[in-house]
Amino acid sequence: MADTPRFERASLVTFVERVLRSAGVPADACPGAATHLVLADERGVASHGVARLPFYVARFRRGLIDPVAPLTVERQTAATLALDAHNGFGMVQGPRAMGMVIDRARASGLCVATVRHGNHFGIAGAYTLMAAREGMIGVAMTNASPLVAPLFGSEARLGTNPISVAVPTGPAADDPPVVLDMSTSTVAWGKVEIARRAGTALPLGWALDEAGDPTTDAHAARWLTPLGGPPETGGHKGYGLGVIVDIMCGPLAGAAWSARVSGARGPDRAAGIGHTFMAWRVDAFRDPDEFYADLATFLSELRETPVSPAYAGNRVLIPGDPEREAEREAGYRGIPIAAPVVTELRALAATGVPFDIVRVA
Amino acid sequence: MADTPRFERASLVTFVERVLRSAGVPADACPGAATHLVLADERGVASHGVARLPFYVARFRRGLIDPVAPLTVERQTAATLALDAHNGFGMVQGPRAMGMVIDRARASGLCVATVRHGNHFGIAGAYTLMAAREGMIGVAMTNASPLVAPLFGSEARLGTNPISVAVPTGPAADDPPVVLDMSTSTVAWGKVEIARRAGTALPLGWALDEAGDPTTDAHAARWLTPLGGPPETGGHKGYGLGVIVDIMCGPLAGAAWSARVSGARGPDRAAGIGHTFMAWRVDAFRDPDEFYADLATFLSELRETPVSPAYAGNRVLIPGDPEREAEREAGYRGIPIAAPVVTELRALAATGVPFDIVRVA
Repeated sequence: MADTPRFERASLVTFVERVLRSAGVPADACPGAATHLVLADERGVASHGVARLPFYVARFRRGLIDPVAPLTVERQTAATLALDAHNGFGMVQGPRAMGMVIDRARASGLCVATVRHGNHFGIAGAYTLMAAREGMIGVAMTNASPLVAPLFGSEARLGTNPISVAVPTGPAADDPPVVLDMSTSTVAWGKVEIARRAGTALPLGWALDEAGDPTTDAHAARWLTPLGGPPETGGHKGYGLGVIVDIMCGPLAGAAWSARVSGARGPDRAAGIGHTFMAWRVDAFRDPDEFYADLATFLSELRETPVSPAYAGNRVLIPGDPEREAEREAGYRGIPIAAPVVTELRALAATGVPFDIVRVA
Repeated sequence: MADTPRFERASLVTFVERVLRSAGVPADACPGAATHLVLADERGVASHGVARLPFYVARFRRGLIDPVAPLTVERQTAATLALDAHNGFGMVQGPRAMGMVIDRARASGLCVATVRHGNHFGIAGAYTLMAAREGMIGVAMTNASPLVAPLFGSEARLGTNPISVAVPTGPAADDPPVVLDMSTSTVAWGKVEIARRAGTALPLGWALDEAGDPTTDAHAARWLTPLGGPPETGGHKGYGLGVIVDIMCGPLAGAAWSARVSGARGPDRAAGIGHTFMAWRVDAFRDPDEFYADLATFLSELRETPVSPAYAGNRVLIPGDPEREAEREAGYRGIPIAAPVVTELRALAATGVPFDIVRVA
């Protein structure tokens, strides 16, 4: 990442806002959506950040995402919501839905919501962070277009189907939450693309080739495998987690399930993605001060675990540490955007939005 | 398993009931607890079945489990419960707690509960099956005594911290639910014990030795590793899942967290385990008939996935298939109990309970 150009945050957010506005997203929704998208780059998840903007814009132009879709409540109780995103923009409808979940959890202790007819919603961690900032535990899941083969299968029937859980560690907005944000595949597709560009082999257990055979050739890789890899190291577990995410976000939400979700590789139609969000108040279960005190001790005990000789030079981390460190670094060094992505953003600007993002390193 | 003796179910349940009653468990609680325990053996999870009975009895005798403890509500809302099991028997307090969760979810759409001061509660899948039989999606998690090293760590700071999710596939009691029931380690410790007895090597990625180095020597294995194994194949994900389970079941529940949970290897005191249970009604989110129809299609599409040449002879399964198959086989062939376990059960019987379990194969 040493050579990746870095850009000033405000200029990047403003550029994304303008691009979204030019694509038809209502002006009042653009700042939030742009902030949401750029957060992925700040947290080091470049595959889900502004690199996706050209894809989103192309889908707006082809009428495959409705920039002004409403978010409607289809069913509800005091603690549940079944929402319909009407094929709206993920970066608008997702945060709107999670905001409703948080509001309802504030009133009733917890809320679980499904969202149907959605689109790619960015990093799942952005939603759970919304909950953690309000002193709540948050959960977010989404299905996605097919890319992961079931255990023993030779072709994809599941998306990377990520799960995020965030837990607040204190009452202050700057207490750093624990944030798990993981695909249920061994790796995300972006890791295969990195290996392709670097010309390196893949570890066994990442991918299958066209015939469905495990492969270490990044260029031959076509499908991903579930977390756990082959059966003897628990591939049925990652597969099982992926299935559960897809049931929640697909059939339960009334959305498509993964083999039927349309993505960049799929047919030219609305994605049909579904999401599941949850939030619950800490004080529904325990006195928050006692919880935060115990959690701090637990996290310290984890951090102080002696390091295995096989991993000398590393240290035991808490889920979310790497993303938090990336965000901190982005804060003082600027946000890294890979050169090819900068070129693509410049091409978007050619349509009338001034390309004035400020390089700082 | 061909040589494992098999026993008639009713005789086994009755024997367990009598042993529990002689240990001080109230008579009206014994049938449910015995059924719960034997279900693990029926479903092929022998490590969590009657093999644990001598361990439980020893703990009853040493006053480390209270057979008559109440289950009290510490906090509640329409959709949440914070429960205290007062160091009661896991196989009594666990089902009682999940029953309360199901009742509350029936009324309010969903319920999430934590349980503090618990004990080993058997297979997590037994709880989620309770929900699925009522037409609800169920979730169960528990922490456990330390056995799993954090990623990069050289010694245990987490339990195997299992997660189960069950999803009903139809309105009838005999519609087979989807059941994920997984530890967040690569494998459960029982697999290491099997390799020890068989004299086989462990796959790399299962275990660490005393020094914290990865090992393939079953006898040298001392700690388990998180699902995903080394960092390049996603060990941070299994570790992260284990941490989240422990936060929910430990600090949030007001229970011990794993490094402080006492188990068979730990100090001679109450376990201090915590659990988290959830249940939600399908119809809070979607018309159940539509849900069941979509889910059936999704599951069919998974089952029909072409098989990878690397796994010829296998087929793509649905989470819960192996346990369901074991249960079906146990139904007509009897319940398998390994010979050394039978010997231990006989030793329990020496204290006055007639040892009259009926061998059928």
